[in-house]
Amino acid sequence: MTGSAVLTERWSHWRQRVDDCLEQHLPAAGMEPAMLSEAMRYAVFGTGKRFRAALVYAAGEGLGATPTELDLPACAVELVHAFSLVHDDLPAMDDDDLRRGKPSCHVAFGEATAILTGDALQSLAFDLLARESSGYSAQTRLDMVRILAQATGSSGMAGGQAIDLSGSASSKTALETMHRMKTGALIAASVQLGARAAGAEDPALLEGLSRYGLVLGLTFQVTDDILDETSETAALGKMRGSDRRQHKPTYLTVLGEAPARRAAAQYHQRAREALAGLPMDVTALMALTDFVTSRHH
Amino acid sequence: MTGSAVLTERWSHWRQRVDDCLEQHLPAAGMEPAMLSEAMRYAVFGTGKRFRAALVYAAGEGLGATPTELDLPACAVELVHAFSLVHDDLPAMDDDDLRRGKPSCHVAFGEATAILTGDALQSLAFDLLARESSGYSAQTRLDMVRILAQATGSSGMAGGQAIDLSGSASSKTALETMHRMKTGALIAASVQLGARAAGAEDPALLEGLSRYGLVLGLTFQVTDDILDETSETAALGKMRGSDRRQHKPTYLTVLGEAPARRAAAQYHQRAREALAGLPMDVTALMALTDFVTSRHH
Repeated sequence: MTGSAVLTERWSHWRQRVDDCLEQHLPAAGMEPAMLSEAMRYAVFGTGKRFRAALVYAAGEGLGATPTELDLPACAVELVHAFSLVHDDLPAMDDDDLRRGKPSCHVAFGEATAILTGDALQSLAFDLLARESSGYSAQTRLDMVRILAQATGSSGMAGGQAIDLSGSASSKTALETMHRMKTGALIAASVQLGARAAGAEDPALLEGLSRYGLVLGLTFQVTDDILDETSETAALGKMRGSDRRQHKPTYLTVLGEAPARRAAAQYHQRAREALAGLPMDVTALMALTDFVTSRHH
Repeated sequence: MTGSAVLTERWSHWRQRVDDCLEQHLPAAGMEPAMLSEAMRYAVFGTGKRFRAALVYAAGEGLGATPTELDLPACAVELVHAFSLVHDDLPAMDDDDLRRGKPSCHVAFGEATAILTGDALQSLAFDLLARESSGYSAQTRLDMVRILAQATGSSGMAGGQAIDLSGSASSKTALETMHRMKTGALIAASVQLGARAAGAEDPALLEGLSRYGLVLGLTFQVTDDILDETSETAALGKMRGSDRRQHKPTYLTVLGEAPARRAAAQYHQRAREALAGLPMDVTALMALTDFVTSRHH
């Protein structure tokens, strides 16, 4: 099999694992309050690629962890990612009616429930990481809570979204700062959580993974901006050109298409280089890195 | 000094402590993204009584902890409380323009920033509890993360607010279920966090404190419902009668005023009894319990 075919098979396996784990830990359908339980499940399950979970598994397995040891952090990053999509789609934020090819959470359940859904998904992520049943040492679980909390908050994802909404990121440097926080922080947290769950404690390795994750986030985002302008809505699962219509700065509007494509290639190369030097098996992470620039939606 | 005067002095001291600790851990004014940092500080600082922080200190000191040992959990519960107020006030939720005597967060900063502010305050709460510098054992910190996460999520505060918004709580029993989740869970978490931070591990004690907290939450809520109808807006710091105007069920609309006042007295008595049997110094908690039914706003 080619590297890409191997990745496809592993990724499909990881996706099944994380979905099983999420199924086990989300409130059961019908559990009171039933509408909130249903909305949490709706927001989490669907056609998502589970890219962040795949990064947890790829990093953790590259350091010798078993998939079982990586299920809880994989769930936790997907819960945080799902919460951020629910809140970002709200009318007061990006006002997107379509997400992953189906009506956004607030369209399906109303705004109030969507706000509470995001809040409850965030709490559940930290609850899962702190569980005793996970088999990690207490110190490992605490490190994972802190890594995820910092990636989520005002110096991470929430802060990046605040900058995005302000529309102030009008240079390549400002776009990088914004996307490092908005997208990169959670991607960097994903590979760090995988490594910590595998027992890795070497600060240089964790720092190297974080640097890799941040530039992978930039690769991801510039590719997203290009796809947002050049793909069909059906393939994208959200409205084509929706970022531009909201006058939000993107790599395309700030740089133009050709320079944006060059930036994508440069980030991709930097991510590969950041990986190559790490003292671990990076095969799966390298394949995921290559996927980011080759994807079509 | 009377018991009440002693409480006033201790409470004022606790309030100063938790405000100093929050000042230390919130993003500094002006830190980028500046509007988010400012909104987080706006949402947290003001005229709040810091009732939940006081419960952390009262429970923890009643089990021999020093105030210093209780600062972080006191901050964490106030961050979660502030986050819940910001989100509850949103137009899609309770649509309250006034909070603690000043414009609500979304009125002052816009809805998008208010949503992100709540999100970031929640993350910060878990970040604080997981900090190494706190001096607690790793196991204690993990227990605190779990206690707070479960009180915040779909089986706690977020779930209670979902029931409240659905308007389905049309009997005394249904109101109790809703308020145990919406208000009681975080109050119960506050006394449990204080006890865990003091090193208490006895499941019977923690369970007893939780039962006390849940009924104290009911006492608090029925008193709130009565005050919401009978106080002036200026004293209340929010719009008088705002719950009734939203057709949300309250103790007054479901039971009528006289039965609501009797329920308040009964809950108050049950909270006192729940406390009295606990193997710890309950003086401060008893004074806080009495405060709840004697307050005027």
